Amino acid sequence: MLKAVQILGWSTAGLTIISQRLTKTRNSTSSTVSFLSTSTNPRKLSTFSSSPRKTLRFNPTRMSSSLPGSDPVPKSPTFVSVQSAGDVRKIKFCQWCGGPTKHEIPDGEEKLRAICTHCDKIAYQNPKMVVGCLIEHEGKVLLCKRNIQPSHGLWTLPAGYLEVGESAAEGAMRETWEEAGATVEVVSPFAQLDIPLIGQTYVIFLAKLKNLDFAPGPESLECRLFALDEIPFDSLAFSSIYVTLNLYLEDLKKGKIKFHYGTINKSFFCFSQAWK
Amino acid sequence: MLKAVQILGWSTAGLTIISQRLTKTRNSTSSTVSFLSTSTNPRKLSTFSSSPRKTLRFNPTRMSSSLPGSDPVPKSPTFVSVQSAGDVRKIKFCQWCGGPTKHEIPDGEEKLRAICTHCDKIAYQNPKMVVGCLIEHEGKVLLCKRNIQPSHGLWTLPAGYLEVGESAAEGAMRETWEEAGATVEVVSPFAQLDIPLIGQTYVIFLAKLKNLDFAPGPESLECRLFALDEIPFDSLAFSSIYVTLNLYLEDLKKGKIKFHYGTINKSFFCFSQAWK
Repeated sequence: MLKAVQILGWSTAGLTIISQRLTKTRNSTSSTVSFLSTSTNPRKLSTFSSSPRKTLRFNPTRMSSSLPGSDPVPKSPTFVSVQSAGDVRKIKFCQWCGGPTKHEIPDGEEKLRAICTHCDKIAYQNPKMVVGCLIEHEGKVLLCKRNIQPSHGLWTLPAGYLEVGESAAEGAMRETWEEAGATVEVVSPFAQLDIPLIGQTYVIFLAKLKNLDFAPGPESLECRLFALDEIPFDSLAFSSIYVTLNLYLEDLKKGKIKFHYGTINKSFFCFSQAWK
Repeated sequence: MLKAVQILGWSTAGLTIISQRLTKTRNSTSSTVSFLSTSTNPRKLSTFSSSPRKTLRFNPTRMSSSLPGSDPVPKSPTFVSVQSAGDVRKIKFCQWCGGPTKHEIPDGEEKLRAICTHCDKIAYQNPKMVVGCLIEHEGKVLLCKRNIQPSHGLWTLPAGYLEVGESAAEGAMRETWEEAGATVEVVSPFAQLDIPLIGQTYVIFLAKLKNLDFAPGPESLECRLFALDEIPFDSLAFSSIYVTLNLYLEDLKKGKIKFHYGTINKSFFCFSQAWK
């Protein structure tokens, strides 16, 4: 269950429309949908503010507002996570020497780490980048119906984990090829959406088809071009996809595609299966 | 040694100035500095092009040009990597069950993975995000002289690995606090620079000081505000910082700060110690 989505970022109108859609399409009873909207002129903004070490947290009461009518227990399983952030305590052995680990905060650090009791190496865990394409074709966008969990049967943009050795744009094109069999040209970066709770950052590129030869890969049940007013907002696989598509629609309305940066803060969540 | 830096991305003029600076400041004999420049209007561009699986590589001969006078064996150790991309063969044990790993390409995949011979789990390796701040203050920028390897004694923007549980902007502010003792406000995203060879993506934010109370943390020897014409381009720690600062200077010249996305392709490299 997604309790709260907080968007902190750049693109006022886009965030407004997301708010409207969230309250319209979700039928829950106490979740909050919070936004921080800023001007799109970066030279005049101070969106984020820092605080001293150990208290480096944004203050949501200052930066967001609850929406009347928003709700906490969605019946729809629209928003789910691909993968939860790694639990450091599950790292029980050193991957380099095989020694057992201990879980401590190293000197000079502040986070719990898995440290090898034999070779003293630390197994750091870092967020992963999910890269994907928002593919435009004659006023339509390409979506894939997932053939894998989580969110089996729900719609998504072609996207997946970035690999070592490829750029984000290359990774986004590879995922598009793997999931939709589509050959695309990347047009521009479109959005970076951080999801700190699950240790993921979505990097989405605008792209266009080089031809109409696309077909679902093994991880997709179906691939389809959707007219903008037919996008299945009630059946999207992930909150990041929902946010991305709404930002895109809002940009189109305003006649200008921009780059968006934001954070999706989920108070808690669960997988889609729980709501089916 | 940095043999080739290839920038693929958005911001024509910025890339031009980088080319000039690289040839001016480095004294090598055969390295190439290659750029792909594109208009800053994302709606009219097709910078990247994809190709079928197994050949998803950009064609550098099509997308770049060698610069006469550029050189291959730099005397200056300016450009070094923070950390090379993980070698999957070094993963010899499963971090979850302690079982020995085998190194194979799993069914349906194309990359060599470390697979546990006991529990069958795959230890995926993914690129890491390095987040940092480009801090402006009254026409100057804040740089830190590194007190750690690699690039000890060279100048950098405050930056470091993003942690699970924080957004990129939060991570950038944390690193700024840790390395420069500075409290900042993030103004806007400024650049994403992928470095596929070493599995890193730099995400740099424009930021401003909330006050003048800054001082080097344990990882810095010194922190200083540099006037734009005093930036020590010959003593910068990393190619990503060099590119970022040049993009910034070029934006200032044009009177408009933009978001930049690009890829830094290094043919090969080594650590700074080799050149001292």
